Amino acid sequence: MSDNKKSEQAISAPINETIDGISRAISERNKPAIEQLLSPLNPGETADVMDGLPTDDRRQLIELLPDTLDGEVLLHMGEGAAIELVEEMDADTLQQATEAMDTADVVELLDEVLPTDAAKALLGSMDKQRRERIELNLSFDEHTAGRLMHTDAITVRENVTVETVQRYLRQYENIPQDTTLLIVVDRENRFKGAVSLLTLILHPCETLISDVMDDDWRTLDPNMSEQEVARSFENHDWFSAPVVDKDGYFLGRIVVDDVIDTIRDHADHAIMAPVGLDEDEDLFAPLLPSAGRRSVWLALNLATAFLASWVIGLFEATLEKVVALAVLMPIVASMGGIAGSQTLTLTIRGLAMGQIADSNRLWLLRKEIGIGLLNGLLWSFVVSIIAYLWFKNQQIAIVLGAALTLNMLVAALAGIIVPLTLHRMKIDPALSGAVVLTTVTDVVGFMAFLGLATIFIL
Amino acid sequence: MSDNKKSEQAISAPINETIDGISRAISERNKPAIEQLLSPLNPGETADVMDGLPTDDRRQLIELLPDTLDGEVLLHMGEGAAIELVEEMDADTLQQATEAMDTADVVELLDEVLPTDAAKALLGSMDKQRRERIELNLSFDEHTAGRLMHTDAITVRENVTVETVQRYLRQYENIPQDTTLLIVVDRENRFKGAVSLLTLILHPCETLISDVMDDDWRTLDPNMSEQEVARSFENHDWFSAPVVDKDGYFLGRIVVDDVIDTIRDHADHAIMAPVGLDEDEDLFAPLLPSAGRRSVWLALNLATAFLASWVIGLFEATLEKVVALAVLMPIVASMGGIAGSQTLTLTIRGLAMGQIADSNRLWLLRKEIGIGLLNGLLWSFVVSIIAYLWFKNQQIAIVLGAALTLNMLVAALAGIIVPLTLHRMKIDPALSGAVVLTTVTDVVGFMAFLGLATIFIL
Repeated sequence: MSDNKKSEQAISAPINETIDGISRAISERNKPAIEQLLSPLNPGETADVMDGLPTDDRRQLIELLPDTLDGEVLLHMGEGAAIELVEEMDADTLQQATEAMDTADVVELLDEVLPTDAAKALLGSMDKQRRERIELNLSFDEHTAGRLMHTDAITVRENVTVETVQRYLRQYENIPQDTTLLIVVDRENRFKGAVSLLTLILHPCETLISDVMDDDWRTLDPNMSEQEVARSFENHDWFSAPVVDKDGYFLGRIVVDDVIDTIRDHADHAIMAPVGLDEDEDLFAPLLPSAGRRSVWLALNLATAFLASWVIGLFEATLEKVVALAVLMPIVASMGGIAGSQTLTLTIRGLAMGQIADSNRLWLLRKEIGIGLLNGLLWSFVVSIIAYLWFKNQQIAIVLGAALTLNMLVAALAGIIVPLTLHRMKIDPALSGAVVLTTVTDVVGFMAFLGLATIFIL
Repeated sequence: MSDNKKSEQAISAPINETIDGISRAISERNKPAIEQLLSPLNPGETADVMDGLPTDDRRQLIELLPDTLDGEVLLHMGEGAAIELVEEMDADTLQQATEAMDTADVVELLDEVLPTDAAKALLGSMDKQRRERIELNLSFDEHTAGRLMHTDAITVRENVTVETVQRYLRQYENIPQDTTLLIVVDRENRFKGAVSLLTLILHPCETLISDVMDDDWRTLDPNMSEQEVARSFENHDWFSAPVVDKDGYFLGRIVVDDVIDTIRDHADHAIMAPVGLDEDEDLFAPLLPSAGRRSVWLALNLATAFLASWVIGLFEATLEKVVALAVLMPIVASMGGIAGSQTLTLTIRGLAMGQIADSNRLWLLRKEIGIGLLNGLLWSFVVSIIAYLWFKNQQIAIVLGAALTLNMLVAALAGIIVPLTLHRMKIDPALSGAVVLTTVTDVVGFMAFLGLATIFIL
C-alpha cells in the first residue's frame, strides 16, 4: 500500500507548490533539491512546472540538469515556452532529447516547436527508416489526420488464428504501450478491419481473425482536419482509430491522447484569439518580446478607436451645445458591444461545432434580431428613465432610448453576419470577429445617438 | 472495401449538410427520409444534429421518431439543449431511453440534464443494484473524480494465473467494451495494482498476475476535482485510471472519453463566461428564455456603464469648455480595456493551469507593469501626435498621452490583481473578471483624462 500512497501524494501535490520549491532550489543552485522535486514527475508534469517558471529559471534549470529535457517535456509544454527553450539549445542536446520519442511525437515537435534549421538538422541526424516515417507524416498538410497519426501500428492478416497473432506479438519488439487495437490488412497493406485486444483475449486460440475482426470499423482519411478527427473521437468514444487513404491503404493510427492535445489547442485558441494573442503565448516569456506581440493588437485597436473618435468629432457642434450627450454617449456603445459579443460568441462556437447550416441560418438571424429588439426596448426604457431623472431633459432621454434600441438591433445583426462573413472569407472569426463587431457597435452607437440628437434637439 | 468506403463517407459528411436534410424532411413530415439520414449516425453524431436544430424541429423529430432518443444522445448534446428536450418528455420515455446506458453515463445525465423530479422518478424505476451503484457516485461532490467514475470495472486477484483470468473473462457477461485494464484487488477489495490487456496477451498462460501487474500504478482520489483528473490524464496519456479511496479501497475507473467531455465543458466555460453566458447556452433555444438569460448580463453592464457616465458627469464643466475632450475620451478607455483584457486572459489561463505560484506572482506583476509602461509610452506618443495634428492643441495632446500611459499601467495591474483576488475569494475570474476589469479601466481612463484636463487646461 505504501507505494500507492506515495504515488497518490505525488499526483495530488499541486503544481504551484512544486513550482515554488523548484524556483527556490534554482536560486540556491541546489541540484539535489531540484532532482528530488523533479524525480517523481513524469514528462507532462515536468512540462507543467516548466511552464510556470520565468524564462531565466527555465534556462538555469536546463543548465543545472541537462537530462531534465526529455523531448516529451517539450511536447507537453506550452508551445510558446517550448519554442523559447529550443532556441537556446544546440543540435546535440536536441537530438539526445528526441531519441526515445516515437515518430508521431517527433512530427508534432517538428511541426510546432522546432525552427526550420533545427528541424532539418534533427531529420539529418536520424537513421533512414525513422526519417522516412517522419517524412510520410510531413507529406500531409498541417493540422490534418495525416500529421497526427503514428506509423508504428501492429498489423495482422485475417487468415491467421488468435494463437498465431499472440505468438507474433510476443516476438515483436517495441510494441507501443498504447496499443489497444490490431489492424487487419491484406498482402498489399490494404485495410480490412480491426480487432481489439479485448476480442483477442475473449476468443479461443484456434479462432480465425477473420471471424472476430470488425470489418465495419470506421476509418479516418489522412486529409481530414484535426477538428473533424477530434469530433469523431468524441462521438465514437475511441481510444485509437486507423487512418486509411482513399485507395484503401492503411497508413497509421491516431491515439486519443494526441486528440486531447488538439482539443486543448483549439480551446486555447478560442480563448486567446479574441484579445489578439496567439494560443502559444507564454505567460512567463520575457518582457520585450511579449510587449511587442501585444502591441500589434493595441495598434489595431487604436485605429478603430480613432474611427470612433472621428465619428464623435463629426458632432462637435452638437456636443458643444448639449454637453450631457458626452456624459451619456458611452452607455450606447457599451451596451451594444456587450449584446453583440454575446451573439458573436455563440455564433463562433456554433460555427466551430458545425451547427450552423443553410436551413437554420435565417432562423438564427430572426431569433437574434428578436432578442436584440426585446432587450433593446427593455434597457432603453430603463436607461431613458434614469437619464431623464438625471438631466431632467425629455428630449435627451428619448434620443438616448432610440439610439440604444437601434444599436442593440445592429449589434444582433452584426453578431451573426460578421462571423458568418469572415468564415466564408476564410478569415478566422475567433481572431478578428470581436474587433470588427465592436467597431460596428461603437460607430453605429455614437452615430445614432449624436446624429439623432443633432436632428431632434438642436 | 465497399463497406469501409461507405463508413468513410458517412463520417466525413458534414454535420451541417445532415442538418439541412433533416430540417427539410421534418418540415415535409417525411419519416422515411429522416430515418435514412439518421440511421448511419451514432449517438454522438445524432446529438450534433439535434444541437443544430431549432427547438421546434427537435420536438417534432422526437414526436415523429421517438426511438431516436437514446439516452446517449442526450449526453452528447449541449446541456442547454438536452435540458430543454427532457422537460418535454414523460417518465416512461425517459426510462426507456436510459435503460441501456451504463451507470456512469446515467450519473452524468442525472447531474447535468435531468430536473430533480425526473431524476427521482428515474432512480425509483431502477432495480436495486443499479440504483445503489448510481447512489455511490452521487455520494461524492459534483465535479469530482467520484462522480465521473464507472463502477463496472473488472477486478482480479494477484495470486491467479493469466490463464485463469482469461477463462474468467470469457465467462463474464457484459464486459465493458472500453476495458483496457484489469484492476488487481485483495480479498477486501483493496487496490493492489493494475494489469493491461496488452500485458496479459504478451505473457504465457501460467504467468502469475502478481508477476506482471504494475503495483506502482497511479490512482485517483474520488474527491479530486474534474480538472485535476483531466490534467492527470493529459500528463500520463492514460486510457483509463483506477479510483481508490484514502483507505486504499478500489471504487471504480475513469475512462478517457469522460475526461474529454470534462475538458470540452471547461473550454466552453472559458469561452462563454466572459460574455455572461452559461456554457450550456443553446444557440437554437427559443427566443424568450434566451433573451431573459442574456438580459442579466446586460443589466450588470448597464450598472457599470452608468458608473462610467457618472465619472464623466463629474467633469461636465470641463467638457463644456473643451469639447474636443469628449471626442478623444473613448480612446483612453478603449486602449486600457484592450491592454487589460490581454493580461487578464493570460492570468486566468495561468490560474486554470496551476501555473501561478507564490514564487512567480511578483515576477509576473513586474513583467506586466513593464509591458503596460512600454506599450503605454509607445501608444501615448502616437496618440498625442495624432491628437495634436487634429486639434492643434498641445495641452490636450499632453494630457491625453499622460492619461493613456496611466490607464495602461493600471490596466496591467488590474489584469493581474483582479483575477488573483477573485480566485482567492473563490469567485470564478472567467465569469466576472472582464466586468470588473473594464469597469476599472473605464473609470480610471475617464477620471485620469478629464481630471488632468481640468487641472492643466482650464
